[in-house]
Amino acid sequence: MSLPDVQSWPPRSRFKLSRVGIQGIRKQVFIRWPQRTVQLIVDLDVFVDLPAFKKGSDLSRNSEVIEEIVEQSARQPAPSLEAMCADIAQQLLRKHDYATRSEVHAAADYFLDRVTPSGRRTMEPYRIMAQVMATGEGNIKRYIGVEVMGMTACPCAMETIREACGRELGMTHNQRNVVTIIMESRGEIDADDLIAIAEASMSSPTYEILKRADEKEVVMYAHQHPKFVEDVVRDLLTNILHKYRDLPDDVEVVVRSKSLESIHKHDAFAERTTTIGELKN
Amino acid sequence: MSLPDVQSWPPRSRFKLSRVGIQGIRKQVFIRWPQRTVQLIVDLDVFVDLPAFKKGSDLSRNSEVIEEIVEQSARQPAPSLEAMCADIAQQLLRKHDYATRSEVHAAADYFLDRVTPSGRRTMEPYRIMAQVMATGEGNIKRYIGVEVMGMTACPCAMETIREACGRELGMTHNQRNVVTIIMESRGEIDADDLIAIAEASMSSPTYEILKRADEKEVVMYAHQHPKFVEDVVRDLLTNILHKYRDLPDDVEVVVRSKSLESIHKHDAFAERTTTIGELKN
Amino acid sequence: MSLPDVQSWPPRSRFKLSRVGIQGIRKQVFIRWPQRTVQLIVDLDVFVDLPAFKKGSDLSRNSEVIEEIVEQSARQPAPSLEAMCADIAQQLLRKHDYATRSEVHAAADYFLDRVTPSGRRTMEPYRIMAQVMATGEGNIKRYIGVEVMGMTACPCAMETIREACGRELGMTHNQRNVVTIIMESRGEIDADDLIAIAEASMSSPTYEILKRADEKEVVMYAHQHPKFVEDVVRDLLTNILHKYRDLPDDVEVVVRSKSLESIHKHDAFAERTTTIGELKN
Amino acid sequence: MSLPDVQSWPPRSRFKLSRVGIQGIRKQVFIRWPQRTVQLIVDLDVFVDLPAFKKGSDLSRNSEVIEEIVEQSARQPAPSLEAMCADIAQQLLRKHDYATRSEVHAAADYFLDRVTPSGRRTMEPYRIMAQVMATGEGNIKRYIGVEVMGMTACPCAMETIREACGRELGMTHNQRNVVTIIMESRGEIDADDLIAIAEASMSSPTYEILKRADEKEVVMYAHQHPKFVEDVVRDLLTNILHKYRDLPDDVEVVVRSKSLESIHKHDAFAERTTTIGELKN
Repeated sequence: MSLPDVQSWPPRSRFKLSRVGIQGIRKQVFIRWPQRTVQLIVDLDVFVDLPAFKKGSDLSRNSEVIEEIVEQSARQPAPSLEAMCADIAQQLLRKHDYATRSEVHAAADYFLDRVTPSGRRTMEPYRIMAQVMATGEGNIKRYIGVEVMGMTACPCAMETIREACGRELGMTHNQRNVVTIIMESRGEIDADDLIAIAEASMSSPTYEILKRADEKEVVMYAHQHPKFVEDVVRDLLTNILHKYRDLPDDVEVVVRSKSLESIHKHDAFAERTTTIGELKN
Repeated sequence: MSLPDVQSWPPRSRFKLSRVGIQGIRKQVFIRWPQRTVQLIVDLDVFVDLPAFKKGSDLSRNSEVIEEIVEQSARQPAPSLEAMCADIAQQLLRKHDYATRSEVHAAADYFLDRVTPSGRRTMEPYRIMAQVMATGEGNIKRYIGVEVMGMTACPCAMETIREACGRELGMTHNQRNVVTIIMESRGEIDADDLIAIAEASMSSPTYEILKRADEKEVVMYAHQHPKFVEDVVRDLLTNILHKYRDLPDDVEVVVRSKSLESIHKHDAFAERTTTIGELKN
Repeated sequence: MSLPDVQSWPPRSRFKLSRVGIQGIRKQVFIRWPQRTVQLIVDLDVFVDLPAFKKGSDLSRNSEVIEEIVEQSARQPAPSLEAMCADIAQQLLRKHDYATRSEVHAAADYFLDRVTPSGRRTMEPYRIMAQVMATGEGNIKRYIGVEVMGMTACPCAMETIREACGRELGMTHNQRNVVTIIMESRGEIDADDLIAIAEASMSSPTYEILKRADEKEVVMYAHQHPKFVEDVVRDLLTNILHKYRDLPDDVEVVVRSKSLESIHKHDAFAERTTTIGELKN
Repeated sequence: MSLPDVQSWPPRSRFKLSRVGIQGIRKQVFIRWPQRTVQLIVDLDVFVDLPAFKKGSDLSRNSEVIEEIVEQSARQPAPSLEAMCADIAQQLLRKHDYATRSEVHAAADYFLDRVTPSGRRTMEPYRIMAQVMATGEGNIKRYIGVEVMGMTACPCAMETIREACGRELGMTHNQRNVVTIIMESRGEIDADDLIAIAEASMSSPTYEILKRADEKEVVMYAHQHPKFVEDVVRDLLTNILHKYRDLPDDVEVVVRSKSLESIHKHDAFAERTTTIGELKN
């Protein structure tokens, strides 16, 4: 006896859908970057479009595609998170033959060795992201993203206090800052570089282990580089342009800085959505 | 002695910014709908753009604008959440005279009386949202949104079990479903209508208090109206088109259905981004 | 025809249960404090115990008890959040006649007027909580809690930098701090007082609107009152003892300070669980 | 020049603190269970107590202890998550020589192979936890916990509909359920066993990939095993007692079932806090 295929029934109404899929799938995957192989725990969302004539998208195929490519990464690690997402996106189009478009979002915790000002080694946590849209074999857009915590010291309060108290004092409010960079990638962009750019663009990077001498250095460095969220975003753009000036003009770039203001209960935020070409002009 | 105005200093780099503002401001506001005045606790995010020649956006002006309009709502309640956001958006453009664009996001818990199948009155919680973009006096785009919980029963498992076990059984997996509707509004759209459309488009609305007879009715009704997330989205579109067919063709519409699948650890999702005009064709 | 009462069936196994109930009920309630009547949006969790001989707790009764007392608050506002929770707890014991114990948790956003150093009025957001356990008529324990954001400036980095750079500099890392106070209340404790104690115990309160002169004052005040999370907790205890020294010795007290460290990606935390009597010794 | 040790200064007030530490440290660690070595990404909170005479707890020592033991796990994987936490707890006591008590909380995503009813292999996500309290060398309490998603089908609605419609129909509302088990462990408890007990105690386990025949089996199985959250907790206790009857009487046990009710917007909840000895009586 064959089971009824309700998914293929005609729908009651004639509307196509933009995105149908599954969200919140968590998987262990293996990535082989040039320097090292890492295991990531990835949160995945995957979607395809659905034409007007088809009732259901058969969501179990999405799980199968993910499972197949995740298993493959255990045997042969993917070259990057965004490459793995591109594989999933293309395989989704093959399995859902009615679909004209697929979309894959991925995000994972990620760790890098860092060295504190006094030379101590620490391992710091980050978040890396990938987003891929496929509209046919080889017709794929890939985005790579990072989320990085650091620190900002406010230039306005510093200057106000300097004026009011004489030139000596450098005190100001400072706080945790979260930078996000998302860049379109055609294979040339490494998440580690984006993380380095993020850390270089705040008032100071932050570290898990800071003994007293280190703490002094971090605090003084941050006060020597006071920045608004606006400054952080502009320094991100400067550093991205310096590193990726030779990429094609239409490569898309989104950068954000969010500051968990120490003097307010709300956050400060700045963002630029642009392209490499726009930044060069 | 006048304090230094660091915000107005020239920035080190020449990049304009797309959005600069504050996030996570929580306020009590008063809204007078035609039928009743309600107090809402609103989470607000507000932004303006920043030209290349200006270092900082002077974020304290944003707080002042919000405070001013929130206080005004205590004396004279705003006619709707999106009207209040439009006031904020326009006032932001006046206070940040360099800005060409402002943006306000708002979201709040919201409650409506409902009647269960057996006639019991309950008060149900919802979420309402507004989003406004202003690019000059009178040049304003307003969006109104709702988030509504309900229930879906799966038509595929129901049919498979019917085939396998004979025609009698209606059992299937069912689960909590979250519908989101966002519509561009030029003043004609009432959040209560969007909530009613959302509840009518799932397999069944849900209720806080269900005695045994009510529970039976809700469960049977949901099983008589089995729906995929795809079906929910299409029924949302049908109901929106029925209600808002006479709105201008370029009115934007986004609808989503997310199902907290009872048979999976992940969620199912469907979405359509469209316009009233597209839906009519 | 009467519907089957499955809840009253004997269970398959003979275990009693500690807590059975419902979580995440959101309600609008009205509270009349001596000075003013406020509307709160409250998140409620309610529980009773369940004896070994009873299969189900009939959870719909919980919703009915909540609805009844919430509606009553619309007609006649409750004198406090914890008084309303005590009403719910006692009514739960009456409706679940097999239960020997009931428990109610409540939390709500809350707003107070504040004045910045330069005299500007702002409205600041807080979180208030109540927790009530009833083991019979009149046998009730009530807890009242607050969650308050403010600021800490680190005394260690300040001193290290002072030593290294000479006596002039007061710079240090500072950050958002979240204080929690939970106190057993027999009717004598006002949430507003606990919020005032919380704000007085950090390096500085924080404000939504700070113009330049205000910002300077807040930053300088925080640097003149540098505190570890350990110091914040001890100052909380000192201030609580000063205010509530005459309360009975067995009144329970929990205080916490969590610092969203600006120089680290993790948080610092300190806590004391104690009684008024212990603090006096 | 030696830097000032502000942490060791006498505090202004004489209160001891219950817990001082750091929260939200995220680390990659390696665990060698008998069958296999896994890499986990662990969220850690660590605390010690602080005597009245000491101003600060020197939180950087906590980070150092964590780093040291995490690094050690890369060279020689720990035998279990709770064993690693016990190492950290003991090392905290050594490094903070004034402390009489240390506490470590850990939680991590975790994955196991499962087989669907029709024999398809899937990898399912879980959450494992450990909690350790040390009050001296060898004086250590260890807790091991799991959080497991599955499914419940309501026996009450099923019976009501059966009565109302005749004996044929088995339909009822069903939904995602989250089970938590926490057990004191003296080395005898394996997280995999607790996960198996959790899955066996709900109406049905759930799976990431379910083709139509599998979906039918899961739905029918759940309807053949209808359970309230109260039933889930009792079945958890029965299964725990069956497996761990020979453990000492004072071994502590906490079990919880939370149901994301499909017919309500709120959750249902049941819990038992007990010991193996109590369960045997």
